[in-house]
Amino acid sequence: MQSPSNPLSISIVGSGNVATRFCHAFKAVDVQLNQLLSFSGRGTTLSQNMGMELISKACELDPCDVVLLCVKDDVLNPEFLQQFKGDYLLCHTSGSVGMDVFPNNIRSGVFYPLQSLSASKPIDFSDIPLCLETKEPQDYDLLEHLGHKISNNIVKMDSEQRKQVHLSAVFVSNFVNHLYFIAQDLLKEQHLDFDILKPLIAEIAQKINYLSPKEAQTGPALRSDTDIINKHLKMLQGHKDYQDIYKRITESIIENHKQK
Amino acid sequence: MQSPSNPLSISIVGSGNVATRFCHAFKAVDVQLNQLLSFSGRGTTLSQNMGMELISKACELDPCDVVLLCVKDDVLNPEFLQQFKGDYLLCHTSGSVGMDVFPNNIRSGVFYPLQSLSASKPIDFSDIPLCLETKEPQDYDLLEHLGHKISNNIVKMDSEQRKQVHLSAVFVSNFVNHLYFIAQDLLKEQHLDFDILKPLIAEIAQKINYLSPKEAQTGPALRSDTDIINKHLKMLQGHKDYQDIYKRITESIIENHKQK
Repeated sequence: MQSPSNPLSISIVGSGNVATRFCHAFKAVDVQLNQLLSFSGRGTTLSQNMGMELISKACELDPCDVVLLCVKDDVLNPEFLQQFKGDYLLCHTSGSVGMDVFPNNIRSGVFYPLQSLSASKPIDFSDIPLCLETKEPQDYDLLEHLGHKISNNIVKMDSEQRKQVHLSAVFVSNFVNHLYFIAQDLLKEQHLDFDILKPLIAEIAQKINYLSPKEAQTGPALRSDTDIINKHLKMLQGHKDYQDIYKRITESIIENHKQK
Repeated sequence: MQSPSNPLSISIVGSGNVATRFCHAFKAVDVQLNQLLSFSGRGTTLSQNMGMELISKACELDPCDVVLLCVKDDVLNPEFLQQFKGDYLLCHTSGSVGMDVFPNNIRSGVFYPLQSLSASKPIDFSDIPLCLETKEPQDYDLLEHLGHKISNNIVKMDSEQRKQVHLSAVFVSNFVNHLYFIAQDLLKEQHLDFDILKPLIAEIAQKINYLSPKEAQTGPALRSDTDIINKHLKMLQGHKDYQDIYKRITESIIENHKQK
């Protein structure tokens, strides 16, 4: 293994949310941003803003310490990855794709940021967990070194663990957000503004910092208050999907809290 | 109607989470706390801390501006309420119980705080929505006056609206908290700490302050990524209830986002 350059140098593949946020984060610290590889041609603005060379083919990648693949999960397959044979550590940034996706002959790793990233919204990486893994143990220090440049929250984990983290993240981010959507939709029917729920939403998200989710649970399901539960199910008659979700979560709360 | 006393004087019925938080909130402003009525005898410490007279029967309540019933929903029935005939405005504090629960001959209203309250956790009421309603229009000003003593977020609404708010609140508080519980449980199986999800949880709760829940939605369900969805469902095989919840919410996300 080569020793890392000083400063560390990286190239980025992709120009979406994850690529944009990583570019900004690494530009703000002493990491050299080399090249931006964009297959779609959408990377012009980003590469210009970052002072990176824009390229469109993997074979144009120069040697560097790490190449971060910030592409959609379904792009990550051995055929796609086979073209990245070069003098760098190739890392994907996906929670749900295992290390085993990489062809054997490629120095590879995973650099998965556990956060919801938007191209349009600046974010502070310092407490964002970076879940790291490398195929070869001797590459791990390099990846950790890179991670520490932007975050204090480095977590070494294997692919099985990372997939479970990703699944858990779907529950607390995508699914939680959909419950917000349902609430907003229900309020609209009574001409009420979603803003009324925001103090409650903030409190529930904060509460788990000093109580476990089990201790923090309240509500009709926890009390098995069938009178209220039945009233709610009746109110949801016009929304079969919301009613189903209400039923399933209520049953699950009852089930999990009686097992104390 | 009597004009309100100066300062306003109130009595509280109950000694649980809601009673405790209201006592603390009103004690901190210029509202006189008269009597604490506790049927269970659990109110001793609270009444002493608040300098309130502890009583155990409704007939012992002295005249005052407002009596706040901070009792469990299932206690609120006409037989129970009938004993509160006195020189005060009698208000319950429940989201799910209508105004019509009060006997006709009683001056009555609703004073519903839209927040998750714990006896053990101090809370700032200033931005907490207080959802107010009175049977007689001429009583409304008094209740609003009382509400403004502790909150800047007074919302007048009728019983139908309040019930819908309560139902929506179940989705964004009790159900969201259960999704946190599920995530923690899944992480445990891979010996991972729930703390790893906290930055993500905080971000999702904040995101809705500048994006609507519909705009903020991301994830495999939104992309109809059946490959990941099927992998996740397989990972949840050992938890029939979590798997069911995953399926239902995923279907609902797909359904609601294709209707654009």
